[in-house]
Amino acid sequence: MKALEKMPASEKRKPKIFLSGSIRGGRQLLETYQLMYNILEETGAEVLCWYVADPELEKVEMEMTEEEIYSRDMDLLVKSDALIAEVSVPSIGVGFEVCRALVKGIPVLCLYRPDAIVSAMILGNIDPLIEVRAYPTKKSLKQIIDDFIKTLK
Amino acid sequence: MKALEKMPASEKRKPKIFLSGSIRGGRQLLETYQLMYNILEETGAEVLCWYVADPELEKVEMEMTEEEIYSRDMDLLVKSDALIAEVSVPSIGVGFEVCRALVKGIPVLCLYRPDAIVSAMILGNIDPLIEVRAYPTKKSLKQIIDDFIKTLK
Repeated sequence: MKALEKMPASEKRKPKIFLSGSIRGGRQLLETYQLMYNILEETGAEVLCWYVADPELEKVEMEMTEEEIYSRDMDLLVKSDALIAEVSVPSIGVGFEVCRALVKGIPVLCLYRPDAIVSAMILGNIDPLIEVRAYPTKKSLKQIIDDFIKTLK
Repeated sequence: MKALEKMPASEKRKPKIFLSGSIRGGRQLLETYQLMYNILEETGAEVLCWYVADPELEKVEMEMTEEEIYSRDMDLLVKSDALIAEVSVPSIGVGFEVCRALVKGIPVLCLYRPDAIVSAMILGNIDPLIEVRAYPTKKSLKQIIDDFIKTLK
């Protein structure tokens, strides 16, 4: 046990997280996605689709076909241990990915700003795998993500 | 066969359609949802969630809990023969419902205005059950829906 405790965090098992946020639905919360990405990296998770937090993403995706983007996301979802979605910004992709993660049977954490108008498919979702939380501050966002990641380790 | 041909449309089997459009993501295409509803009724389909085309919907849903709205939609989806979604307006609910319909194994028709920025989870979706079409005019919208409904009868 001691040996395990002394092991650096990087060598422990890192939960693989699918980070889901709006791309074509609007990039107004890009800074929040970047913050979520940084929190996840700090907490010892591996963010599989880091590109949702990439300000240059649209340029990269312009060089890809629609099928390549779809297949990249679905392949990463299959490899993920959990999905964390920012659900304040309406986005067909985010709704689709939340559903796919629940169907796959992995835990899903949905986060939203208290002033957001969030879909009833999220707020009213009775799937036991989904957790839906408002984050009034950056500090609470970090706390919720940290607590969620701990449940995966 | 002759007897069947002479049977009024109302007595033939009516395909049950789940009509999916943005609610909390924005109601700017409400008139289009109403047009889609009317086309579907004319073509002999039964629209199970007609309320997406109801201008008073928000008032009705204010009296419901989030769980009631979610359960109503999921119960109707289970009873549906196909789903038709308007995917021009970003909406987590629409993305979620498209995914659920594909998982259920029913045909899905996604329609969008040629000027819309549509999710890659729709445009690049390789599921054989999904058909994705732009409609430049109201006339083409009607034609696409009519053709789709014919395939279900």
